[in-house]
Parts: sequence; structure tokens; C-alpha cells
Amino acid sequence: MKKIILIALIFASSICTFSQTNISDSAMAVSIFSKALSDDWAIQNLEKLVTKYPYRLCGTKAVSDAVDWSEKTLKELGADTVFRQNLKVLHWERGEKETGIINSKTFGKEKVNVCAIGGSIGTEVKGVNAQVVEVQDFDELNKIGKENIKGKIVFFNRAMDSKFYNTFPAYGGAVNQRSRGASEAAKYGAIAVIVRSLTLSTDKFPHTGIMRYDTNYIKIPAFCISTFHANQLSKQLTQDNNLTLFLKSNCKMLSEKNSYNVVAEIKGTDYPNEYITMGGHIDSWDITSGAHDDGSGIIHSMEVLKLFKDLGIKPKHTIRIVMFMDEEMDQRGAKKYLEIAIKNNEKHIAALESDAGGATPMGISINASDTVYNKLLEWSYLFEIYGITQIIKGYSGVDISPLKSRGVPLFDIIPDSQRYFDYHHSANDTFDKVNNRELQLGSASYALLIYLIDKYGL
Amino acid sequence: MKKIILIALIFASSICTFSQTNISDSAMAVSIFSKALSDDWAIQNLEKLVTKYPYRLCGTKAVSDAVDWSEKTLKELGADTVFRQNLKVLHWERGEKETGIINSKTFGKEKVNVCAIGGSIGTEVKGVNAQVVEVQDFDELNKIGKENIKGKIVFFNRAMDSKFYNTFPAYGGAVNQRSRGASEAAKYGAIAVIVRSLTLSTDKFPHTGIMRYDTNYIKIPAFCISTFHANQLSKQLTQDNNLTLFLKSNCKMLSEKNSYNVVAEIKGTDYPNEYITMGGHIDSWDITSGAHDDGSGIIHSMEVLKLFKDLGIKPKHTIRIVMFMDEEMDQRGAKKYLEIAIKNNEKHIAALESDAGGATPMGISINASDTVYNKLLEWSYLFEIYGITQIIKGYSGVDISPLKSRGVPLFDIIPDSQRYFDYHHSANDTFDKVNNRELQLGSASYALLIYLIDKYGL
Repeated sequence: MKKIILIALIFASSICTFSQTNISDSAMAVSIFSKALSDDWAIQNLEKLVTKYPYRLCGTKAVSDAVDWSEKTLKELGADTVFRQNLKVLHWERGEKETGIINSKTFGKEKVNVCAIGGSIGTEVKGVNAQVVEVQDFDELNKIGKENIKGKIVFFNRAMDSKFYNTFPAYGGAVNQRSRGASEAAKYGAIAVIVRSLTLSTDKFPHTGIMRYDTNYIKIPAFCISTFHANQLSKQLTQDNNLTLFLKSNCKMLSEKNSYNVVAEIKGTDYPNEYITMGGHIDSWDITSGAHDDGSGIIHSMEVLKLFKDLGIKPKHTIRIVMFMDEEMDQRGAKKYLEIAIKNNEKHIAALESDAGGATPMGISINASDTVYNKLLEWSYLFEIYGITQIIKGYSGVDISPLKSRGVPLFDIIPDSQRYFDYHHSANDTFDKVNNRELQLGSASYALLIYLIDKYGL
Repeated sequence: MKKIILIALIFASSICTFSQTNISDSAMAVSIFSKALSDDWAIQNLEKLVTKYPYRLCGTKAVSDAVDWSEKTLKELGADTVFRQNLKVLHWERGEKETGIINSKTFGKEKVNVCAIGGSIGTEVKGVNAQVVEVQDFDELNKIGKENIKGKIVFFNRAMDSKFYNTFPAYGGAVNQRSRGASEAAKYGAIAVIVRSLTLSTDKFPHTGIMRYDTNYIKIPAFCISTFHANQLSKQLTQDNNLTLFLKSNCKMLSEKNSYNVVAEIKGTDYPNEYITMGGHIDSWDITSGAHDDGSGIIHSMEVLKLFKDLGIKPKHTIRIVMFMDEEMDQRGAKKYLEIAIKNNEKHIAALESDAGGATPMGISINASDTVYNKLLEWSYLFEIYGITQIIKGYSGVDISPLKSRGVPLFDIIPDSQRYFDYHHSANDTFDKVNNRELQLGSASYALLIYLIDKYGL
């Protein structure tokens, strides 16, 4: 922790083009951040992506159009090469909007906001209608027992723990209800599950996400319910244990479809066959514009390329910008990227991912050796004046994590997480929720980190 | 800078009541933050303040009602004493909404969004209509000269410098156009000024603020114009230098009115006559709900009291929570507070202010001696895990700064500044722009800092 010398930023007022050899790291940091902060490219292109191509679930026309747009944009930005990696994706379709209705003798009939969890089977055409058993976790299912669960709808209502400072561990502490709740409840004979939306705000948006079935148990339909309505349902249950919930969904899994990762490169001057990979995911859930998740990551990645080009930075290693396909359903893009890297015996010296939203960057998460971590600490003074002060060993993004098996050091810039789950996987993740400057700072942070990795190696 | 141990926050999951003597500082920090993060009091009361009492300019009924509300609320929170400090405030009234119209032979007639700058005189009833001279700064007025300015409207169009990381210095670098532009232009015979709104976003909101006349020159009306329309006017001027701008305002200064600071206290157990003062300002500009400026500061201050009461913390020194009146016009509340402190020979061991918005706290600004600064560094580990890593010597809030003359150490928590000027002094500063968790973290940061100052002294 050091005193921040704001005056240093005054030098930011003139922007020139620099080559990597004749400029100090501090001057380059100022140059990168100044360029990003004085260019509205990021916010303008985020708007294009998320308003022209919302609902970018893998397998849809929307994501296919977004892929075309990203390929065209990366070419226009001056990438040396832009190519696609062919792959197959799951194609799950939500169908007609879901219905949820509470029927209570005490409280009457009330519509609640629900939606199918991604990957769920649909209900029968007539829907399901049954009594509700509210639980906090899987242990409670066991305590309540089959005789009290059979034929009923299990309501997982464990809230994310608001007492965590970082909201990602709070998410991690509640997500198993959504991802595994259906099979856990099916063990005890439940006919459907409804899961409290994973957000720290009380709102009327259902927040979806992925779920997986355990093949040892019968598949039952899984829904999420807005936190507002989860609170309502829970409150009514305390006074009317006999109320019933009607649920209807129309989703189904169709045949796999062809799809793509898009990869753009700036060729390295000295080591063209050694790669620094930076990416985000081009897909989103089907009920959202995906502005933070992961429109911001796509724009951060593209703007790294733009900043290198605009500032005339000629990297020694090849910089790869990857628009990963299908982070949300089955990570087929990440798997394909690894498969090709292995096949071609590619040497990656680092991989970076932006998939935690477009808010103000506050730190760097490093999934690598102590040597790499210590190297980062040497560079930390360059980031501190931009508020990036938390250098931690931790998590790395889902799309780059398969590269860990190849020993590749992995990095994520950590944005402020406070607002992220207000939007996550819901119709609330819209363009207006991303701030221009916060987004610009994200791009600049990644560009500076990549610049340093390229210059000094790891 | 240290590795952040997220696991530490797991201990946050149970909340108890603690006395100051039998608990480690780390446990108290967790206790304070956990309590704040699991209580929606702050956001609920911010909503009350800014939606029931918007447009809280000093001298208005709105601010008088807000004063009543704050007094009542502080009593309900369990303050030992709540009292008022009587004072007089300026009473400036905007009157009917302003008009701005560009008349161009090339581009036709176009309405632009303008509003009078606070403290400005109004135009004559018929308005003013004149050619426009665009300048970047006061030097340019001198270069252009009286013969080219006389009888015209001066358009100050210097934008805030987006390349600063912290947006407050960017504001500082542009604010003299608004605060002193009218008299500077009047020197050269201008009949009115129009000033680019002080925001880094391109939007259609005029952002007002205070101005002062130099009594050596004639008073001319001063307006601000939205950045969107400033860009438009500037663009049109490059192609039609003869266009005219019609401006009409109806504002005037009325007689001074009675008003109040509200002060609430938790009496100190050991040093009841030694004070730690924490405050925000209850007034706002007349065109805004003032959610960030300074509804958030009012709520932070109140919630400090609530956290001390809820957690059973019994401070050794008296904690004073102050709702300062009239930060925006003439800082009469701040002046009165100092005057009474001098008269009563009050000993203040520290003063803290929240007047930089309700975004995620990232640092602490200290306006005090090196000894105090070094003491803060000893406590910094307690703040680091909550993302508060920038401990700097710098600015302190406008309302506590008069206490500097009494040698009082001053402190502000520094929130993330990226979004602040998007809202500042405009109709865009609404309740929905403040995030629940970000607000809670602000309150907790102040409470922890006050706890430590009270426990260890300075």
C-alpha cells in the first residue's frame, strides 16, 4: 500500500505513439490508460453488441450474428489474422415464457416471476401443480425425508450471504441449489424444484443459469424464482402450508449445432509462435442482453487489440484475442480451444479472461506459481495509481481454466463485485448498467498487464 | 498491499453484540461490516430522504422538511441527544424553468437544455439574444479581446479531462468556468455566459453548481448547458459563426431565511466533552433528488450512529452526527458549526465527512499531521480486506474543513469516483443510481474508522 500520487496522472494529458523499447513502464501505463479513458469506442461497441444481439445463447441466430459481428470488428481493428475454430454446441430452447402461480386458500391466487433453469427439461403440457416444501440445503431434504417430499415441489430458498465483501464467494455458497438441486430433490421423489434466484438484491427478475442432472435419478423440471417472489412464497408458506404452486415450462434440448470461437491475432515480432491469450465469451443467457456477462469481457478483449494498434505497440509474442463460444451451457469453446492448442502443441506463455463484469477494476487474480505471483508484485506499483491494489492468488475464468492443464499462468482483472449479481443472468443485465469509464479502465488494465507479460515474460 | 484472505470473511456469518474492551479489532471490523451488509436500513432511508424531499436547496420547504425528518430519525435511532444549531441561509430561487434556443441560418432553430448556475442573476424578462464566442479558458478571453466579446454571450466549453483516473481533479480542472466565468467574461463586455456542464458523460442534463460574482464587474446571467448540447452548439459554431443564442432565466436572490444544522450525539463514557464529528449535508441543488450528493453522506452518517447502537458499542468520546445545512450555496452550516465550537471551546479529536457519493469505498483521505497519517497506516490492515487500500494525504470535505483552523484531524472515506459526475448537481442524481451494498460499505467504513479513533485516540 502506498500513497497515491495523483499528480502523476497530469502527465496523462498528451498521448503519443510509443514503441516498446524507448519508454518507461510508468509512461506506458499512463499512455494506455489515457488512451482508453479518452476514447468512447468501448461503450459504443458494447451498445452495438448487446442491443443488436441480445439473448446470445449458444445455438441461436443471435449468437451466430454476434460471432459475425465480432469477426468483422476484429478485422476492422487491424488484427493481423482473424480465424474461426469450429465446434459443436448444445442447443437448449426455452420455448414459450414460463408460468408460475401460487394458489392459497388464505392468500388467494398470485402470479410469480419464474423461469426455467438452463438445461432443464420442460414440464408436461398441463404443467405441474403441487404442494411446496421449503428447504435451505440438501441436508434438510434428508431430514425431512421422502415421505414428506414425494409428489411435491421442493423450494430451495437459501439466500446468498450478504455478509461477504466479495460477492463471488456469496454466489459460490448458494449456487449448488441451482446447479444440482433438481437431482437432489428427485432422490426424495420431488416432481419439480424452484430455486431462489442468485442475487443479493430483492427484485422481480428471475436469474437463470446452468444446471446438470445426475443420471442416477429421474429428471424433473427446475425453475428459478425472483427473490421478491421467493420472499413472498416463503412468507405465505409459514401461514398456509397447504398452498400449491403451479409451474409450467416449455423448454427442451434439441440437436447440437455448429458454432465457433473467433480468434484474432497480432503477430509477435520475436516469438510469433508463443501466445498470450486474452478472451471473453460471446454467448449469454437467452433472457438477457448480457451487458456485464459477458459483453464487457468481449469489449475488454477487443479493446486490448485496439489499444495495442492505436499506441503502435508491437508485441514480441503473438497476442491472441478470443471470443469464446458457450461459456454458459457446456464450455465447448474453451474445450475446443484447449484441444487445438494440444493438437498444434502451441506454447501459451499466459492466458487472461474477463468474465466478471465491467465495473471498476480493483485487483488482479493470479492462478499460477509463486514465481509468477512475485513477478506481478514487482509490477504492482504500475497498477496502484489506477486503484488496482488487490494482487491475490485465486480464481481464474472458466474459459481459460482448461489451459491450466498445460501449465499456463492464468490471470483475471478483478472488478468491483458489489453490483454484479444484481444483473447476472437476468433481464436486468442491460446496456445502461455498464458505465463508460469503468469499462474503459477494465480494458486498460488488461492491456497494461499483457504489455508487461509480453515485455518481461513470466 | 497484501494478499486478501477471503476466507477471513467466513467468520462474518454470525453477528453478536460486543463491548469495546473484549474484542479484537479484526473481529470488530467483521462485526461492523457484517451488520451493515445484512441490514437494508440505509437504502430504505435513502429512498425516503430523496424521494420524499427532493430539491433540498437551502431556504426551501423541502430542506426544512428534510431537517425535521432527520431530527426525528436520529431520535428514533437512539441518539442520547439531538439538537439544532440556528443559522441564516441565502435564499436563491430559480423560478420558472429556463429557456435556451439556438437560431442558425444554416441549421435552423433548436432548443438546448440549459439551466441557471446557482447564485446567478436572472435575465431580463425578454431574455438575452446574442452571438456566441466559444472559448476554452480565461486566457482565451484576453486573446480574443473586448472588441470581439462585447455584447456577446461567452460559451465556456472546456471539458473535464477524462484522462484523470480520479474524477475529482478532472472536475477541479474545469470548475472555474462555472464558478468565476461570468465575471471574467463581464470584464470584456459579455452580456451572459453559458458553461459546458461539468460531467464526463455526454448527456442531456444540465449540471448546475455554485458561482460567485467579482464585485468589480457588472453582474451578468450565467447558465450551464448539457454536454450533448454543448457539443452541438460548438459544432454548429464551426460552420455558422453568426448563429445567435437566446437565453432566458428567472432566478433571483431573496432575503435570507432561518435554518438549522441538526446534531445528534452518543455521549462518551470517559470523555463526554471531547468530540468525534461525522457528517454529511442535508441540502442539495434545487434540480436534483441529491441521492449521491449528498443523500448518501447523510445516510452514512446516520448509519454510523445506528451501527454503534445496534452493536452496543459505547464510545469513550462523544460521537457527533451532523446534518450540515447549506454546503451547496454558502456553507453557512459549516461556518456556524465552527463558530459554536469556538464559542464553547469544544475539543474535537477528529472530524469526518461523507460528501463524495455512495459508491464503493476504496480509500481514506487524511488531512492531518504525519503522526496521524502513520497511525492510520497501522490500522490499514483492517480496511484492506474491504477493498479500502488507498490511504492518502489529501482533500477533506467542505463542511468539516473549517475545523482545520482548530487543528482538528480530518478524514474522508474515498468512494470510487468513476460514476459520480454522471449524476452530480443534475436531475440524473436519483435514488436508483445508488447501490444498496456500495452504500452499506460506506457506512461500515466510517463506523470502523470512528471506532478506532475513539478507541486509540490520534
